Amino acid sequence: MSHEKLPLEAFFNKIEELKPKFIERLSKAVSIPSVSGDETLRPQVVEMAHFLSGELKNLGFHDIQLRELGVQPPPVSDPNLKLPPIVLGRYGSDPKKKTVLVYGHYDVQPALKEDGWATDPFKLTVDESNDVVYGRGSTDDKGPVLGWLNVVEAHNELKLELPVNLVVCFEGMEESGSLGLDDLIAKEAKQYFAGIDTTCISDNYWLGTKKPVLTYGLRGVSYYQVAISGPGADLHSGIFGGVVAEPMTDLVKVLSELVDTNGNILIPGVNEMVAPVTDKEEGLYDPIDFSVEELNAAAGSETALYQNKKDILKHRWRYPSLSVHGIEGAFSGAGAKTVIPAKVIGKFSIRTVPDMDPRKLDELVIGYVEKVFAKLNSPNTLKAELVHDGNYWVSDPFNDSFTAAAKATEDVWNIKPDFTREGGSIPITLTFEKELGTGVLLLPMGRGDDGAHSINEKINISNYINGCKTLGAYLHYYSKA
Amino acid sequence: MSHEKLPLEAFFNKIEELKPKFIERLSKAVSIPSVSGDETLRPQVVEMAHFLSGELKNLGFHDIQLRELGVQPPPVSDPNLKLPPIVLGRYGSDPKKKTVLVYGHYDVQPALKEDGWATDPFKLTVDESNDVVYGRGSTDDKGPVLGWLNVVEAHNELKLELPVNLVVCFEGMEESGSLGLDDLIAKEAKQYFAGIDTTCISDNYWLGTKKPVLTYGLRGVSYYQVAISGPGADLHSGIFGGVVAEPMTDLVKVLSELVDTNGNILIPGVNEMVAPVTDKEEGLYDPIDFSVEELNAAAGSETALYQNKKDILKHRWRYPSLSVHGIEGAFSGAGAKTVIPAKVIGKFSIRTVPDMDPRKLDELVIGYVEKVFAKLNSPNTLKAELVHDGNYWVSDPFNDSFTAAAKATEDVWNIKPDFTREGGSIPITLTFEKELGTGVLLLPMGRGDDGAHSINEKINISNYINGCKTLGAYLHYYSKA
Repeated sequence: MSHEKLPLEAFFNKIEELKPKFIERLSKAVSIPSVSGDETLRPQVVEMAHFLSGELKNLGFHDIQLRELGVQPPPVSDPNLKLPPIVLGRYGSDPKKKTVLVYGHYDVQPALKEDGWATDPFKLTVDESNDVVYGRGSTDDKGPVLGWLNVVEAHNELKLELPVNLVVCFEGMEESGSLGLDDLIAKEAKQYFAGIDTTCISDNYWLGTKKPVLTYGLRGVSYYQVAISGPGADLHSGIFGGVVAEPMTDLVKVLSELVDTNGNILIPGVNEMVAPVTDKEEGLYDPIDFSVEELNAAAGSETALYQNKKDILKHRWRYPSLSVHGIEGAFSGAGAKTVIPAKVIGKFSIRTVPDMDPRKLDELVIGYVEKVFAKLNSPNTLKAELVHDGNYWVSDPFNDSFTAAAKATEDVWNIKPDFTREGGSIPITLTFEKELGTGVLLLPMGRGDDGAHSINEKINISNYINGCKTLGAYLHYYSKA
Repeated sequence: MSHEKLPLEAFFNKIEELKPKFIERLSKAVSIPSVSGDETLRPQVVEMAHFLSGELKNLGFHDIQLRELGVQPPPVSDPNLKLPPIVLGRYGSDPKKKTVLVYGHYDVQPALKEDGWATDPFKLTVDESNDVVYGRGSTDDKGPVLGWLNVVEAHNELKLELPVNLVVCFEGMEESGSLGLDDLIAKEAKQYFAGIDTTCISDNYWLGTKKPVLTYGLRGVSYYQVAISGPGADLHSGIFGGVVAEPMTDLVKVLSELVDTNGNILIPGVNEMVAPVTDKEEGLYDPIDFSVEELNAAAGSETALYQNKKDILKHRWRYPSLSVHGIEGAFSGAGAKTVIPAKVIGKFSIRTVPDMDPRKLDELVIGYVEKVFAKLNSPNTLKAELVHDGNYWVSDPFNDSFTAAAKATEDVWNIKPDFTREGGSIPITLTFEKELGTGVLLLPMGRGDDGAHSINEKINISNYINGCKTLGAYLHYYSKA
């Protein structure tokens, strides 16, 4: 992937020069506890939206809008609680340029010093000697959001023209289900978002701690429940044990035939829907910086199902998996209760991948569960159903946007990025792709060990600063693609 | 079972004559809300103890003691909360007579009008035309407790000598775990309870609503848990699904191999420990008043595993059963959570019967669970253990005490009683047998539909009055045995 470098030295130098200012900007953002999941902190979430719109205005963005989303639907304590606004803004509107939409979120996960933080979570703590700043939101997702602003500021200072039109969309409810976002995107697809050429989201992480990555795929999920009902009410196992058919007996039997200890899905037809690995895809795994030791460290155990990198990554990213999550209605407390539960609901989900057809999957899963149950010849009744699903997403990692991002990354980090997927889902990716009809690039800024939803969240200063360079360089390369 | 009747007509007539007084006595007892499970009502539980000791005194009992049991162990709101006393008393101490210990409890289950009671639960409501009185404790266990007092009163009025020495032991914590009772029985076995020839407990129910029963057996219970541990913490199924061995996958597999849909225990060696049905026992099932319809009505479903009376009763009473109660540590709420639980603990219990050896059972169960798990070849770890157990109890239904009770029942009800067992356990039965070295007779007063722990608890007036006759007649027949 050798490429002609663009002359971005001045831009990179300006970013380095502005580092103290950019850290100061992050410090201001982190000091606003914009926790979307805490109703009492809703004013601070709104304050954060105003902080951003102020910054956008100072940087020369136009058409800045704080889009209200109405009242938050139940469950809420305050029935009049307003959702935080979505912040929209534009920089440039030159019809000769490409237009790039960037998405990020300005709300954060809850954080209390008492949770075990070494520092005040809402005071950015700078540890220059270890190349780290600590604070809630530093990596998820205030750092990346400010990255885009920093890119514009560097261009302004250099009086360097931004090579694309930039549209920003920053939401304040990402950590609480992105309430209202899908509707707004659908509504604005041909209005505010008209003419978007591509979308870039910086809200995930490097796979590890050493190599930058570009992310081109996400698994989907189909969540099922299987309810087995027998008696009219919970019964005492002393009186009824041995004389009535127990729903739990049937349920554990059904759940035991879904997947084996090695993770193989036992439902016929499911694995057959999975797209084969192409040579081109196969080649993407070789350079990736990952090992079974990293998996074990992350899981906190030596219970990996595969012992080599490629198998692990493929089974995390591009093969389906089935997890049994639990049972509703059975005894679940500590201690010993001698109940025969009357109705038990097993919950399991399948992580989906190309080319699985979700409706075909539902048919296979529900048909199989019903068949297994029928073989038991039980007088109990079973109802299996899909609870919810979200589709997988895969992009062409060799398209213009990814190619531009790869060149930018290599310019900044002097190494080719790894092309990764994620095992989980980022639903907004699919929404942008579907509603705007554009490709989406996931271009992460932070490292795999940033602790996004954990205590002592951090971002490496080098990731923040080089991340700004990468975002800017990406816009330049993409503008030429 | 034809027998020579004793001349008990005068006693039976006196009981009939005193019916209004006996109902009044029950009314007074029911009006004291002696709910042992409600700390705020503890003074009323104590008041009930004093009511009983007053009645005993008036009837000529001696050596009446209210035995304090100290402070109730945690969990309690009030760390100084005193346990209600155990009421002891004697009537007669003639060394030429046999001595019968009778046990009952004066505390009751909680009851609120709002729970759905048609009447005030703590006001005895008399419905003479339907042969019923309603009220909390009427059948469980204030009616039976007062039954013994009524027997003495009828003898006093008739100036008829009681044919045995009577020792009463009435506790006030039966509905809350009988705290302190075991210790007191052990301590007094050779003191207050020295010289006891047999024990009679009237604290269970007829199997149905038409035929009186004597109960000669209870199943035991051995409660097990099997914990399977993998990751160091709960994991996200998107990131880890397919690459780590999931404890839930293994646990449902293990639980699925314990028992089949038809209730057959699949653990080798368990069924082989069960005592065969003797001809004598077999004969006891034929006359029993019970049907599959009654089972279905009680279970609220048509999910009975057997369609004929004998199979149902045998599997409830004299064969073991295995129930899977639930799983601790897995997702158990409503909705959909995509967690891979790190440690899950399956709970199941086996109802035990003669001649199962509890220690041998533990060995078989734990060995089998470990073997099933080993076959899975999982990198997770398993720990199976006994949580608690209580032994089964079976008496000889043809011994002196049962024979006396059968004669008494036939005299009063003009029908031979059914000989029943119960599928659950009444631990105090075993304690009396073990500590006092006497046989125990379970001689119920109320019917199977009395709703002991439910709303609208009742006792039929005929059961209360004929119950008193039966208790008295039992003492007479037993004295001659």
